[in-house]
Amino acid sequence: MPVKLIKNNYGKSRVRLMKVSREGDRHELQNITVKIALEGDFDDIHFKGDNSKCLPTDTMKNTAYALAAQTDEIEEIESFGMRLARHFLNENEPVVCVSIDIVEHGYTRMMMDGTPHPHSFTKNEGEKRTTSIVMTRDETSVESGLEDLTVIKTTQSAFAGFVKDKYTFLPETDDRIFCTSVKAIWRYNDPQDATKELWTGVRQTILDTFATHDSMSVQHTLCAMGEAVLNSFPAVGEISFSLPNIHCIPVDVTRFGEEDKKAIFMPTDEPHGLIEGRMTRS
Amino acid sequence: MPVKLIKNNYGKSRVRLMKVSREGDRHELQNITVKIALEGDFDDIHFKGDNSKCLPTDTMKNTAYALAAQTDEIEEIESFGMRLARHFLNENEPVVCVSIDIVEHGYTRMMMDGTPHPHSFTKNEGEKRTTSIVMTRDETSVESGLEDLTVIKTTQSAFAGFVKDKYTFLPETDDRIFCTSVKAIWRYNDPQDATKELWTGVRQTILDTFATHDSMSVQHTLCAMGEAVLNSFPAVGEISFSLPNIHCIPVDVTRFGEEDKKAIFMPTDEPHGLIEGRMTRS
Amino acid sequence: MPVKLIKNNYGKSRVRLMKVSREGDRHELQNITVKIALEGDFDDIHFKGDNSKCLPTDTMKNTAYALAAQTDEIEEIESFGMRLARHFLNENEPVVCVSIDIVEHGYTRMMMDGTPHPHSFTKNEGEKRTTSIVMTRDETSVESGLEDLTVIKTTQSAFAGFVKDKYTFLPETDDRIFCTSVKAIWRYNDPQDATKELWTGVRQTILDTFATHDSMSVQHTLCAMGEAVLNSFPAVGEISFSLPNIHCIPVDVTRFGEEDKKAIFMPTDEPHGLIEGRMTRS
Amino acid sequence: MPVKLIKNNYGKSRVRLMKVSREGDRHELQNITVKIALEGDFDDIHFKGDNSKCLPTDTMKNTAYALAAQTDEIEEIESFGMRLARHFLNENEPVVCVSIDIVEHGYTRMMMDGTPHPHSFTKNEGEKRTTSIVMTRDETSVESGLEDLTVIKTTQSAFAGFVKDKYTFLPETDDRIFCTSVKAIWRYNDPQDATKELWTGVRQTILDTFATHDSMSVQHTLCAMGEAVLNSFPAVGEISFSLPNIHCIPVDVTRFGEEDKKAIFMPTDEPHGLIEGRMTRS
Repeated sequence: MPVKLIKNNYGKSRVRLMKVSREGDRHELQNITVKIALEGDFDDIHFKGDNSKCLPTDTMKNTAYALAAQTDEIEEIESFGMRLARHFLNENEPVVCVSIDIVEHGYTRMMMDGTPHPHSFTKNEGEKRTTSIVMTRDETSVESGLEDLTVIKTTQSAFAGFVKDKYTFLPETDDRIFCTSVKAIWRYNDPQDATKELWTGVRQTILDTFATHDSMSVQHTLCAMGEAVLNSFPAVGEISFSLPNIHCIPVDVTRFGEEDKKAIFMPTDEPHGLIEGRMTRS
Repeated sequence: MPVKLIKNNYGKSRVRLMKVSREGDRHELQNITVKIALEGDFDDIHFKGDNSKCLPTDTMKNTAYALAAQTDEIEEIESFGMRLARHFLNENEPVVCVSIDIVEHGYTRMMMDGTPHPHSFTKNEGEKRTTSIVMTRDETSVESGLEDLTVIKTTQSAFAGFVKDKYTFLPETDDRIFCTSVKAIWRYNDPQDATKELWTGVRQTILDTFATHDSMSVQHTLCAMGEAVLNSFPAVGEISFSLPNIHCIPVDVTRFGEEDKKAIFMPTDEPHGLIEGRMTRS
Repeated sequence: MPVKLIKNNYGKSRVRLMKVSREGDRHELQNITVKIALEGDFDDIHFKGDNSKCLPTDTMKNTAYALAAQTDEIEEIESFGMRLARHFLNENEPVVCVSIDIVEHGYTRMMMDGTPHPHSFTKNEGEKRTTSIVMTRDETSVESGLEDLTVIKTTQSAFAGFVKDKYTFLPETDDRIFCTSVKAIWRYNDPQDATKELWTGVRQTILDTFATHDSMSVQHTLCAMGEAVLNSFPAVGEISFSLPNIHCIPVDVTRFGEEDKKAIFMPTDEPHGLIEGRMTRS
Repeated sequence: MPVKLIKNNYGKSRVRLMKVSREGDRHELQNITVKIALEGDFDDIHFKGDNSKCLPTDTMKNTAYALAAQTDEIEEIESFGMRLARHFLNENEPVVCVSIDIVEHGYTRMMMDGTPHPHSFTKNEGEKRTTSIVMTRDETSVESGLEDLTVIKTTQSAFAGFVKDKYTFLPETDDRIFCTSVKAIWRYNDPQDATKELWTGVRQTILDTFATHDSMSVQHTLCAMGEAVLNSFPAVGEISFSLPNIHCIPVDVTRFGEEDKKAIFMPTDEPHGLIEGRMTRS
């Protein structure tokens, strides 16, 4: 019974690359993790063990280092990713599609007595800037995003009026803690718009909306954040969110003889709600 | 500028459920982690903060516990997942699609002097059995799988004859270590075929092929494993693999004055190759 | 052959507690993880299965919530930990020693148009504030610390003049990247000195020294940081550091036909150096 | 104000080493992670930045590979660790103490139709074999151990008769699930006794006791396991355990209209009990 390959891709993951850019004494720093995947006409590799069209994944890793070395300045991850994707398409005829995913880990320049230090930084753990590029010889899709940005508000969040069935025991509340770890991905209409400035603007709009929104549910706030971004940034054509509801469960301290002041909570990661949505303009 | 929601889903993740089935002294044990996601006509939740169609994710969690309690025996995860999906569709008119993902953590019954112990087990860390169910009122898709099954062979694996460009420095080899962590997902033509016996058969076929295949590349072995499963199990309609190439880099001990016996390697997780493919019958 | 118990402790780990303090509209937030361990005369629990002296670990968890509810303000973790330890000693005669370890996860208040928001925060992932308290009826030891504070400097770090034996191939360098994740623990001469202000001062002194020190090795900078803290804060009697050397390996881009501008590095976590030292006044 | 260094150590962590031993067609495999730490008279490194006594941690890593290459067979981790420690003491006069920690990841040889395969293995995730060696020029301490061995029994475990104070709400039970992840460390009276056979025997004794013990508490079973090991293995002089109580909380399914058959549980990692004890002969 003959079989066939209906989809394939291969590449290198977790390629770590740090770049230092020096302008006199002042250094800039970029720390990224790159994932490269190629799709193409690779039946012979799979069925015959014939590697004559197979670019080694080790070479893909080297290519990331080589192309990074070709520019002196720190480069937007979207721009670097597109250069990488274009290189693999140009140099490898059997390749029909290249996917590049880049995660950028942020740093904050240290301050010494109010002055920015020229070459010392603290790393911003958690939050990351991301991009996903899918390029064929005909078209290019560029998405930018952020992930692991944990935010919390201690009031102005409710959850009530929901469906009650025989398995529903959740009390309604007009005042709960709302904690989530924002993952957002958006598509620029034009990949050239993918700049740090725009990224920072989208990020701030998400934070502002989270902080000030009168939330009836995670979905409600997700929608408000998407609406705010789409209304503020014409360059953004579409945005999607993945928002875990990191529950902070009120502890009933009256059991322990203490007055209930809505002060003590038990945060928990497991289980958690997960709310996802994608928005665009009508 | 009006916006719209083009996709949405919400639910509960990381619902942990352990079930004990007792038949006289002999106990059976099942430990699963469930993810539930509902899609539907939920515009009012998002745009108006109107939760009247919103089933709380806490209720979804309770439903998993309730439905598990309705059966005495340990149940195949595919069957349990389908019951859960059907419940949410039946009881919630606005829901149009339910996704259920279940991960099952395996256990090995302890042996005491050659006799299986009635109620004590060791946990099999790593390898997991999985299922993904997507159900609408019209159709049901059931996938079964395994993940985190780490395998290694110390010979009978080569990688040579590949593309060399200016960034290629990888030496060709006719004998290398081949280590991967198998993730495989397959679709049964008929969800009723999803039994532990079939799962065990697919798993063993993957292991047998990995062990005995004369590998020219990870792709080559991926293809052989898929071919073997499709040829041996008519119930399987399609299978896909995700295979990280966990590199074991030869250490050049001649630098240290020792003879090179191809004995010493440095395993590394970062970076790693990643080879993926999906196969079906012609 | 009789056996004996020469050491024992038991308790509750990973007790997660979030506290919200409200002063009008302005909220404060504290998120901590508590570990409690009791030592004492518990031979009968172990040898006889007699639990009459055994305080359940579930009760220890409840006690953490109850005692947290007794104060309205956010409390220093050292002060809260000492209250907890004292409670267990006072209420449980068989207990001879209580250990409390607390990790505090930091938050940054969001800014809206330059104004601090009353109740919205971003979480500072990575860096944590810690305390370890060991209390008997006779004495109390309080240590404060920080951990997972990742710092990097892109110059002003050398490593040369070291021992060369037959296994040494590391090149000497007068200019390398220095990256570490600082874990520091210090003992206050008087536990009452354990305030956020002092903690912030110690932290800043560590950062300032890291940034400005002309480093000959990780050890050299560790020593400079310890010296600076001991010289600046008489309240600190002793300080110890655990500093992984997170290697950023220069990539030889000349192999790829690119000019070497010392710009491209490969950060790696595995293997890593680990440098530890404890300092006090002479 | 002068300061001094009262303790220091430095070395290399997470050195990963895989060794393949070939006897004809049949291969043996060993996968270990090594941590090396040196203590000594290193004041000048710290205070003066003088590295003339500093053996680079990169050299320590190379030494692990070199010494592993000197033997053809797979070596007990205790024996390999002692060779490493001895090397650093012999070759480095300023070093006064060497600590070597090794974790060994196990593999299971694959079976093909009932026959052991000569060169293919599955990796045993989770459980690890460990050793900790501390060597000075005067004495050597060798500890062996196992960790991350998760075990569970679904009955024959009780917890009752405990202290009740005002914060105690835990119900007494004469039948609960007992799940833990065993970490055990033991000291051989003579390091030469540290063989795989003995290790396997200690491991099996721990499992047998866990399975058959009529447990009144985690402490009670810890003590029984220690007693069994000390009684069965004269070569073991002392043993300590660290046993998290991985709670499996009964779900009250009567709330959902289902009969309570003590079948449905919610396992949770956070918070968890932690019970530790060390035992020796009287």
